[in-house]
Amino acid sequence: MRRRDLLAGAGSIAAGAMSGFPAPALAQGIRQLKLVTDWPEGSPGLQSSAMRLAKTISEVSNGRIAIEVFPAGALVRPFETFDAVAAGVAEMFHSADYYFEAKSPAFNFFTAVPFGYTADELFAWVHYGGGQELWDELSGQFGLKQFLCCNTGTQSGGWFVDEITSPDGFRGLRYRIPGLGAAVLRRMDAIVVNVPGGEIARSIRSGALDAAEWVGPWLDMALGLHKAARYFYYPGFHEPGTGLTLGINRRVWESFSPSDQRLIEACAAGEYSRSLAEFNANNALWLRKLREEGTVTIQKFDDSLLRAFIKTSQEVVAEAGSGDELSRKVYASYQQFRASIMEWSDIAERAFLNSRRLV
Amino acid sequence: MRRRDLLAGAGSIAAGAMSGFPAPALAQGIRQLKLVTDWPEGSPGLQSSAMRLAKTISEVSNGRIAIEVFPAGALVRPFETFDAVAAGVAEMFHSADYYFEAKSPAFNFFTAVPFGYTADELFAWVHYGGGQELWDELSGQFGLKQFLCCNTGTQSGGWFVDEITSPDGFRGLRYRIPGLGAAVLRRMDAIVVNVPGGEIARSIRSGALDAAEWVGPWLDMALGLHKAARYFYYPGFHEPGTGLTLGINRRVWESFSPSDQRLIEACAAGEYSRSLAEFNANNALWLRKLREEGTVTIQKFDDSLLRAFIKTSQEVVAEAGSGDELSRKVYASYQQFRASIMEWSDIAERAFLNSRRLV
Repeated sequence: MRRRDLLAGAGSIAAGAMSGFPAPALAQGIRQLKLVTDWPEGSPGLQSSAMRLAKTISEVSNGRIAIEVFPAGALVRPFETFDAVAAGVAEMFHSADYYFEAKSPAFNFFTAVPFGYTADELFAWVHYGGGQELWDELSGQFGLKQFLCCNTGTQSGGWFVDEITSPDGFRGLRYRIPGLGAAVLRRMDAIVVNVPGGEIARSIRSGALDAAEWVGPWLDMALGLHKAARYFYYPGFHEPGTGLTLGINRRVWESFSPSDQRLIEACAAGEYSRSLAEFNANNALWLRKLREEGTVTIQKFDDSLLRAFIKTSQEVVAEAGSGDELSRKVYASYQQFRASIMEWSDIAERAFLNSRRLV
Repeated sequence: MRRRDLLAGAGSIAAGAMSGFPAPALAQGIRQLKLVTDWPEGSPGLQSSAMRLAKTISEVSNGRIAIEVFPAGALVRPFETFDAVAAGVAEMFHSADYYFEAKSPAFNFFTAVPFGYTADELFAWVHYGGGQELWDELSGQFGLKQFLCCNTGTQSGGWFVDEITSPDGFRGLRYRIPGLGAAVLRRMDAIVVNVPGGEIARSIRSGALDAAEWVGPWLDMALGLHKAARYFYYPGFHEPGTGLTLGINRRVWESFSPSDQRLIEACAAGEYSRSLAEFNANNALWLRKLREEGTVTIQKFDDSLLRAFIKTSQEVVAEAGSGDELSRKVYASYQQFRASIMEWSDIAERAFLNSRRLV
């Protein structure tokens, strides 16, 4: 997903939305809150996760906490969600923290970085590796409290018009890829191009793009990318487990009773499991359809490419963690936990997944 | 974990516990419930997950739902948790459904089967692959409603006195391994021996055991298994992602308001993420300690062994799904989703985890 693309692809923008809204309504003991997202209306997996989280919080609180969900552009401009919630224009957002890396590059680490954490590893770092405390410190600087509330799982490498057989193949390639992944590809001399989600397929067909990454089979095929390109590459080294965020205005957060704070935390943690399960189940379904259609070649990036990605990613990620003191602390914590959890994943899930496929 | 071992290792057994207790107390709007577990008091990861879940439900409900947690043997005999909750002696249990395979072998599929699902795949099957509906049907036959509420992650292969280099090495090996994994090893001519958790280390030292499996580095090293055997094998093919269960008396479940039903569901789903994160983070920590101590050889089961495990596991798992009509339905659903999710895991998490380790 790319910030500028979602922005360009979003619906109507409510004029004057930033001019201010009343504080949370308290009528008959019902707390009415606004949750703004950076997802287009009706987008599966993303907007649907925000809707489900709001519904769960409302139901679990027996209607005491009523959350109205606004898709991208409906209440505030896309990617102004962070500022809008910090300013109290809305009380909550559902978004991806890496969209806000201009505030601090350290926000990348709470969403996804190239060759970083899987979904389960990210949750382990945040909850049992000191991540949440650092995130609280970082978010607190902007008047926010944030929680992990969604994960897309491992993303895919994307759709390519032609086969790529060596790192040289990226030279001059017009590639749509977001965030730190884009920084990696630029250093490999790709030409990173911004295209809104809804226009990717057409851009590939017109020749404006040679390749594009979005999320994975489920969401990509909804955009028709499998009709536009012949090669589907994996894995998505740039986003191995993309964590999405429930951001809450800090004063609003502190105004909740301890019980309602636990309620929101529990619902966010539950939605993390559910959204990941929904992505995995649907990606499996659509991958099967892709194979059955038989028109696209599904292949792994060659090891020579992956090695080049690793080398360049190390530089790019280190730079994201080299700024101010807090960014350096976040990066140090991330790297230390990563070394430890990778050793465990090697002999646990990775060894199991490889063993299960032995013939 | 092995049912008989936990039983033998459990604490005091409350006499007459099965003779009946009053229905859930309703005083001052507070609902007081009893949750019985099959975990020894104070056991990390397992009993602590049950305690945390009870605490979360209590806090989220602002004290309206007060849950008292009883470890194994404190209120009812270990492994009588299922029957006790079905009979209304307690309202809830936190356990592993494969302990109750004598009720129906289909219960194995909701915990772990050899070469079955990882933690994320299990949650995806239950929530987006039809698993919960089948589980409701199966549990309903026994007067229960069940939810996934905990996962240990991928377990380990266990601790061996001597190196195992071929399938013949299991012939006559006195091996402590539970459930369907034990059935697999028996067919490979191992002698499966029952030993309570607290006695495994001593049994290895005395020569009564040649090898033993428990959970993973975190819980195993707490039992001192790393001091008793020189070889630590991975992966735990028999339990690739062990799901634990919140079981609720069906009439009690139906007596909850829709809001409180959603509350319990959300807290269980949240605890699934949290417990898995706790296991992964702590297993990583203890694996590091094991490496630093340097006294144990950590190695993967040889591919020839894993191939033998796969072949025999297919037979054992098929038999578990070959009984009554509902068991066959559960097995068919499990296998169909497994084929689909494995294809996705191959190009997503598995491909990523392998790529991240390229040098």
